[in-house]
Amino acid sequence: MKRPEWLRAMLLTTALALISPALAADDGTVTDFLLDNGMEVVVIPDHRAPIVTHMVWYKIGSADEPPGKSGIAHFFEHLMFKATTNHAAGEFDRAVSDIGGSNNAFTSYDYTAFHETVAPSALEQMMGFEADRMRNLILTDDVIKTERDVILEERRSRIDNNPQAVLDEEVDATLWQNQPYRIPVIGWMQEMEQLNRTDATAFYDKYYRPNNAVLIVAGDVEPETVKALAEKTYGKVARGPDLPPRVRPVEPEQNTKRTVTLSDARVSVPSFSTQWVVPSYHTAKPGEAEALDLLAEILGGGNRSRLYQALVVKQGIASNAGAYFQGTMLDDTNFTVFGAPRGDAKLADVEAAVDAEVARIASDGVTPDELEKAKDRYIRSMVFTRDKQDSMAEMYGSTLATGGNVQDVQQWPDRIRKVTADEVKAVAARYLVLARSTSGYLLPQQQAGN
Amino acid sequence: MKRPEWLRAMLLTTALALISPALAADDGTVTDFLLDNGMEVVVIPDHRAPIVTHMVWYKIGSADEPPGKSGIAHFFEHLMFKATTNHAAGEFDRAVSDIGGSNNAFTSYDYTAFHETVAPSALEQMMGFEADRMRNLILTDDVIKTERDVILEERRSRIDNNPQAVLDEEVDATLWQNQPYRIPVIGWMQEMEQLNRTDATAFYDKYYRPNNAVLIVAGDVEPETVKALAEKTYGKVARGPDLPPRVRPVEPEQNTKRTVTLSDARVSVPSFSTQWVVPSYHTAKPGEAEALDLLAEILGGGNRSRLYQALVVKQGIASNAGAYFQGTMLDDTNFTVFGAPRGDAKLADVEAAVDAEVARIASDGVTPDELEKAKDRYIRSMVFTRDKQDSMAEMYGSTLATGGNVQDVQQWPDRIRKVTADEVKAVAARYLVLARSTSGYLLPQQQAGN
Repeated sequence: MKRPEWLRAMLLTTALALISPALAADDGTVTDFLLDNGMEVVVIPDHRAPIVTHMVWYKIGSADEPPGKSGIAHFFEHLMFKATTNHAAGEFDRAVSDIGGSNNAFTSYDYTAFHETVAPSALEQMMGFEADRMRNLILTDDVIKTERDVILEERRSRIDNNPQAVLDEEVDATLWQNQPYRIPVIGWMQEMEQLNRTDATAFYDKYYRPNNAVLIVAGDVEPETVKALAEKTYGKVARGPDLPPRVRPVEPEQNTKRTVTLSDARVSVPSFSTQWVVPSYHTAKPGEAEALDLLAEILGGGNRSRLYQALVVKQGIASNAGAYFQGTMLDDTNFTVFGAPRGDAKLADVEAAVDAEVARIASDGVTPDELEKAKDRYIRSMVFTRDKQDSMAEMYGSTLATGGNVQDVQQWPDRIRKVTADEVKAVAARYLVLARSTSGYLLPQQQAGN
Repeated sequence: MKRPEWLRAMLLTTALALISPALAADDGTVTDFLLDNGMEVVVIPDHRAPIVTHMVWYKIGSADEPPGKSGIAHFFEHLMFKATTNHAAGEFDRAVSDIGGSNNAFTSYDYTAFHETVAPSALEQMMGFEADRMRNLILTDDVIKTERDVILEERRSRIDNNPQAVLDEEVDATLWQNQPYRIPVIGWMQEMEQLNRTDATAFYDKYYRPNNAVLIVAGDVEPETVKALAEKTYGKVARGPDLPPRVRPVEPEQNTKRTVTLSDARVSVPSFSTQWVVPSYHTAKPGEAEALDLLAEILGGGNRSRLYQALVVKQGIASNAGAYFQGTMLDDTNFTVFGAPRGDAKLADVEAAVDAEVARIASDGVTPDELEKAKDRYIRSMVFTRDKQDSMAEMYGSTLATGGNVQDVQQWPDRIRKVTADEVKAVAARYLVLARSTSGYLLPQQQAGN
């Protein structure tokens, strides 16, 4: 969850769409409506190819889990592929592959999403399957036990066997001391092992409801068709009880510098990252999140960034160095810088050089020229991502699932264009304070004393 | 909450009591019974003086608070001194002081307790007041607002104005990444500000019930008298709904070394502490908590301890150095070592010397002679604490409120006596691993780069 490349890609796609409408999948005719049962529907026409991307986003992620039940949101994503009262387990998957489509699902802190890419003629069938599993899963103890073994194994292979992932978990839980982003999406082993049918049923009944879901359909279809099909399928699912607002514990003010160090025999090259708590698009004052996005781009967004140019190109001490900002979150989020040494360089030298660039941008700001080039880089990079229909769908889905709306997506490029150099300097100075940061160090075993 | 001196005092008191019954307030005739409404009662006769200590312990502490409601357990302790349907605010306090008694209350992670020390003739009156406020508080918006201002001011003066307290909070939240001991008992400011009447009423109705309370009466009274009075007062309070078991989120395995550093202009002498997650008396395997208590005594329990002798006396580099173990907790707890430099010595040298003593005790263990002397020191120190009737009452109360029973208290000294040198070495080696520890550093402003 640390570096969601698709998130960056998504944001870029839309920006291009609106700046260069002739090239865009999103031609400005995005349609947004509610079904009678409260399900929100967004239709994004894209007639370049006879393909449709169908996504259902549930406004439920790991950060909404009850205390002690970490991992249940992701566990439930798995359970959604099991048998329902109408379809055997695997039937949905087979139907997708029989028609040459693809499907998958993912879980994040703020949402859980299911998606299929198929020919437009199969859209109704996809909707039928999705509407069915929204309410008709058969959750037996046997199903729970079998799938729980799967997620436990997934945790072992993806986290416990990976020193970087182990470190990332403890860094997250050190950066976040109250807000639930401190808890790993996949869950903590000792809690995953205890997840049971009672937990799963309560979770399903509470969150898997049309009034907690957003349907995104992008592709070679018309809004009227989508509406008719959605009413025929999802529209038959009864509205669930109203959910309370997603008000989660928020982070107290940070007053300290924190570090987390993992020394592991499997590590050959050391590396570090430093992160700060910053506002997200949903929690920021107007313009702040946009300024943070450009700050990340200028400081460490790629090969033209300050960190890369200074550490990798000029000083030659780092094999990599950069920065990123994870803006599309319901609650406050993190801004991260990172680096790893090259050759004989020491990790401490790389960190000092990164810190110096952070301090410099916070004290001296960015130049207007540098800012314009950063904005331009966004636009150029859009050319490479704009063709992805699924990225466009994901961008709307993730924004709508984290407190935003269709307008927020559409006006985003204009807001980025309006960011001034002073605003970039201001967010750097306000948030990137080393005495209130959290650093993670991944070290080879022999450097344990670093 | 970091160094509860009374806790140590309490444990010592009982041990003496049982080893030297002729001297003890607790002569072995401790009586334990339940009222019909589920309230537990413990009577500890102590006829040396015409005084009685009356305590009501509620099995509700800050670690039981709902997410986002930090501070409500402590807030409720304050609210318990407000008006009831039978008594004006302040009437209870005045009644106690009119008869020359004393009273107070405290809140911890696992319990909230209210106590009065008075002449035995006033016991029934105390019980009447306590039984009354268990259910008859008048919680108006005005009462809530006024008292909320008091706890906010308490937080400002006790935490925010005290760099050590600010650091301790962030160290706790770094050591504990899932278990609720990561949350300060007083609460986080941004959540305390939001506590309201709805929260308070729900909390009161759920937890302030006779079946969630333990009454401890120590002093110049007979069990029969206490029973009769308790039935007449507390016995009239209706039993509340059964509460679920106190199963809280538990800590994932720690794989990293973590540090938390606060640099502050108000700090003149630097200091550090290192802590580990260890089992408590309630969560430990048989004998482990007892071994941890003796490990703390040998490593850093006072002027005869290894840390004090090595760093303060022999090397002369530290003004103070020690260790403690906080055993009386419902869930896993912390074992802590600490030190501060003297004269020209550097903090890093003090830390290295502490680390060396920790490593030495984990690898080489303790000598039988050293262990016996540590046990003897316990007994000698009991002489100075045994006269405290309130310490005796607190020891029973805190044990019963954290999953123990009267037998646990009475058999504790025997279990301490049985600890072997191998067991002390084993817990040191198992738990005091530096690569899986959390250190806090309090530094003067100019040492920010330490």
